[in-house]
Amino acid sequence: MGYIDSLNKLTNSFRALPGVGFKTAQRYAYSVLNMEEEDVKTFADSLINAKQKIKFCSECGNFSESEVCESCLKNNAEIICVVAEPKDVLAMEKIKNFNGAYHVLHGCINPLEHKGPDDIRIKELIKRVQKYKTKEVIMATNPDVAGDTTAYYIAELLKPFGVKVTRLAQGVAMGTDLEYADEVTLSRAMELRNNL
Amino acid sequence: MGYIDSLNKLTNSFRALPGVGFKTAQRYAYSVLNMEEEDVKTFADSLINAKQKIKFCSECGNFSESEVCESCLKNNAEIICVVAEPKDVLAMEKIKNFNGAYHVLHGCINPLEHKGPDDIRIKELIKRVQKYKTKEVIMATNPDVAGDTTAYYIAELLKPFGVKVTRLAQGVAMGTDLEYADEVTLSRAMELRNNL
Repeated sequence: MGYIDSLNKLTNSFRALPGVGFKTAQRYAYSVLNMEEEDVKTFADSLINAKQKIKFCSECGNFSESEVCESCLKNNAEIICVVAEPKDVLAMEKIKNFNGAYHVLHGCINPLEHKGPDDIRIKELIKRVQKYKTKEVIMATNPDVAGDTTAYYIAELLKPFGVKVTRLAQGVAMGTDLEYADEVTLSRAMELRNNL
Repeated sequence: MGYIDSLNKLTNSFRALPGVGFKTAQRYAYSVLNMEEEDVKTFADSLINAKQKIKFCSECGNFSESEVCESCLKNNAEIICVVAEPKDVLAMEKIKNFNGAYHVLHGCINPLEHKGPDDIRIKELIKRVQKYKTKEVIMATNPDVAGDTTAYYIAELLKPFGVKVTRLAQGVAMGTDLEYADEVTLSRAMELRNNL
């Protein structure tokens, strides 16, 4: 089957998706051949449409079809939850009762990836804090070295503006078996233990 | 994020792929937004192209861009390997030294799926056997009830034509731990045991 050119090209296209190897891409390609022509057309259109229509919101930096996204129009920026990537907004939105605004940095400060403070949307965050007189900035970057560095860096930067900067609590996750928790998580949980 | 229409549509398109649930589809959709516009265009084109260009080979019934596929042009039909689906040809081609032709039935006889002998490409197989004076037909349908039924049915049908009909050997797979082999496989392997 190595010689069906358009099938090979389709397989290669699927391989560009995250976590998709050759076998999975081939399986996807075969399934496309079994779809209705109409559905394949819709699939192709949805790819082009999404890529062309979706830009970044000028306020929060999240994906949006309009200049300012609905979340920014709806929620006031008294509390801003700062995340690294658009997909983290999705994760945070699982908490149904958070009504503040989001701010997407598009990365973290990470020397290994040659990303400094000027490469992520920190300036935009400071502008928003000043403009909307934000009372609290919640740093919801990932609990790893890059995420922690970014959180501390932004906390320092925001000090002059008198805004409260908080960080998502770190510790053992709900439902974890302590037996299987890693030592860094455990020692962090011990360090940050709460009064009962 | 529930309100970005084109992102939702793209996510839905990805969900049509086999084994892709909501989370995976969402992950794929996000990755498309991070691709270059050029690459997304290529992706969309490859979908349309594959669907429009790839038809079935008039001889073997496998996917092909031309009226008769390259495999049928290249290999003579002295030996025909009969499989249920196009993807099975791909699996069989892993055996590098098989030089015969293939024949894709597009299904097996399966009353549960309302598929009878007339719904799969059996007539076409008989025509080929007569036309090319085929010496051997290898039934490589899956080793399950539908596959076995189809194999026996076709073997009976081909008897008048004096062609040898064989079936892929069944037994324990290479590298299997006998401890974990299922009882049907084991009893079949016992029944079909070979002399050493």
